[in-house]
Amino acid sequence: MPPHRLVKQLAQVARPMSTLAGYKLQQHSYKYRYMIVSAGIATGGVMFYFCQKHKVLAASSVQSQKSLWMTDPITDIKDLEKNPDSMKTKMELLIMRIQGEVCRALEKEEEDKKFVVDRWIRNEGGGGISCVIQDGMVFEKAGVNISVVHGHLPPAAIQQMKSRGKNLSGKNLPFFATGISAVIHPRNPYVPTIHFNYRYFEVENEDGTKQSWFGGGTDLTPSYLNQEDCVHFHKTLKVACDKHDKSYYSRFKTWCDEYFYIKHREETRGIGGIFFDDLEEPNHEEIFKFVKSCAESVVPCYIPLVQKHKNNGYGYAEREWQLLRRGRYVEFNLIYDRGTKFGLFTPGARYESILMSLPLTARWEYCHQVEPGSKEEEMVQVLKKPRSWV
Amino acid sequence: MPPHRLVKQLAQVARPMSTLAGYKLQQHSYKYRYMIVSAGIATGGVMFYFCQKHKVLAASSVQSQKSLWMTDPITDIKDLEKNPDSMKTKMELLIMRIQGEVCRALEKEEEDKKFVVDRWIRNEGGGGISCVIQDGMVFEKAGVNISVVHGHLPPAAIQQMKSRGKNLSGKNLPFFATGISAVIHPRNPYVPTIHFNYRYFEVENEDGTKQSWFGGGTDLTPSYLNQEDCVHFHKTLKVACDKHDKSYYSRFKTWCDEYFYIKHREETRGIGGIFFDDLEEPNHEEIFKFVKSCAESVVPCYIPLVQKHKNNGYGYAEREWQLLRRGRYVEFNLIYDRGTKFGLFTPGARYESILMSLPLTARWEYCHQVEPGSKEEEMVQVLKKPRSWV
Repeated sequence: MPPHRLVKQLAQVARPMSTLAGYKLQQHSYKYRYMIVSAGIATGGVMFYFCQKHKVLAASSVQSQKSLWMTDPITDIKDLEKNPDSMKTKMELLIMRIQGEVCRALEKEEEDKKFVVDRWIRNEGGGGISCVIQDGMVFEKAGVNISVVHGHLPPAAIQQMKSRGKNLSGKNLPFFATGISAVIHPRNPYVPTIHFNYRYFEVENEDGTKQSWFGGGTDLTPSYLNQEDCVHFHKTLKVACDKHDKSYYSRFKTWCDEYFYIKHREETRGIGGIFFDDLEEPNHEEIFKFVKSCAESVVPCYIPLVQKHKNNGYGYAEREWQLLRRGRYVEFNLIYDRGTKFGLFTPGARYESILMSLPLTARWEYCHQVEPGSKEEEMVQVLKKPRSWV
Repeated sequence: MPPHRLVKQLAQVARPMSTLAGYKLQQHSYKYRYMIVSAGIATGGVMFYFCQKHKVLAASSVQSQKSLWMTDPITDIKDLEKNPDSMKTKMELLIMRIQGEVCRALEKEEEDKKFVVDRWIRNEGGGGISCVIQDGMVFEKAGVNISVVHGHLPPAAIQQMKSRGKNLSGKNLPFFATGISAVIHPRNPYVPTIHFNYRYFEVENEDGTKQSWFGGGTDLTPSYLNQEDCVHFHKTLKVACDKHDKSYYSRFKTWCDEYFYIKHREETRGIGGIFFDDLEEPNHEEIFKFVKSCAESVVPCYIPLVQKHKNNGYGYAEREWQLLRRGRYVEFNLIYDRGTKFGLFTPGARYESILMSLPLTARWEYCHQVEPGSKEEEMVQVLKKPRSWV
């Protein structure tokens, strides 16, 4: 095995152990990776030890993670350090790191532009960080957002949760919500659009009882079908799921196909992935680990597809078909997506960050028909009847 | 007064009296209008007489209207002839005629393309006629649809009505709905987009009681503000309203500004017009006449603006701004518009006809800002704070 492939494999092992090393790997040439991987494994071990045994020392590690982030977290670093075991802290630190990792991995492919970083504060409580590339050479629009918000949920937002099966009582319930959400619309019609979102919720009922749960998922929306890509994408997700529960992948793959369904068109938005919501069992600690694995699998799920196709040749017809598919994307997001509605119905929400999921351009043709036997028809057939990929 | 202006005035008087003459006027030069107007007045008088006194003869007039339509009505002509006094018949004949008038007036401006006429049948009862121009020289997308549907309303569709204040009881209520709905998206950024919709509803509650009402409106969405256009548009609507009730225009103008409000952006979709719903008072006959006046005012409201601006010069910046404004149009239609939701939630609805309201192309830029003092800012100021135009 050539040395750089060995390093690659080591790097994959090392990353979950040390996020610091994991990230830095992406910034260096292979020549330097040897050292960093070793250091990564070592640091990972040391950090793990500190986290378990010395909370005070672990707390200071919040500061040390700074280089991984796109900007400062929403919650004051001192508050994060004071509550290292709180799920709120753990989720915020996770999404801060994932945001940095994903943005830097995408920037490496972009060449033309860097992410613009917007840190915004919500008057009603909390805020967010939106990282956006617009009109890039590779990414026509790429948004990677995190948000950490709290306050009171208005009836319209509660309704979005109730309709999902949550049993919430009251009109204005105290809540806390944190999550990372990203949509990447590449320019080349052969590079698929990816969406992922991982979130944690706490809501207090009127009677003082609390509910908290996790939700999330990663899904792919190609304009053209590439079987190899689909298998790679789903396999990578399955590996992340299988580490935690052998039933997860198949459950969450089905849930994803059902959720991203454009009812009026009787087709799915893309070729799926995984989707879950209201996850509370077996316990928060286990689900957090699962969410962490999923979020960490985004880069290996997607970046290889960008690298593989970003220089593919294409013409007017492929571009037009991509824009039509993006029209469907807009339809799903604005008509059916609960996340978008929940966002828009939450007072003080930053609509620019919510609607960042919309493509730069989209197209609607009246009664568009695909040619029988065409590549476009091949894609539609999969959207009409989701397939098993692994 | 020069003879052609006299003819114009006569034509305005004649049109409501004879739809046949009214329509044909648009197809002939002034030279021939004298004869047609006179014939129109005469025919109008004759028809009026027949309608009142001889229902059998009046019935045959349904056949004679054929040349006004784009294709055959949804309801069998014999059934329409059998029930000339039924509001269902009157509304269907009105919208058939308006569809023909509007399509032919637009075709005269288009030069490049003719309307494609799709007659569709709904398995669950009824059907519709969609007339669409796509990718024309003047009209990038223009759809003028009518529908005449009946059957049972599912809970999701009833919900759309209840949330409006209708007190409907039951899970699957028998209903009848007919209406005309049009959205015209011109290519030139200086020609505004127009939307109009006039509809009649009948719903039967579980206890057998019936409710029926009218709704509708006409509204304008320019990308650039032209005060003169706004005044012309609103004045024409006011004239149509004032003939029936002096309070209508001001009530329905306010309602329009409130309805076409993009809540998350805190701006209206356009410069308004009129909008009303649940209209039952003073009686169906009077409201029908009002709806007829409004529907007949569409051509004089809009065609002069098309003629005035369709050859305006424009560049990349204006086109881009137009596409951004269209993005907002899509947001309103897919997130807030009750008509769209009602349509999509009605089983067997033809989504291609419902989504024909979406533009051919639209654009979303993250955090787009208008230049202070620019024409774009001038437009946004009106959207942020609706004005009085008459």
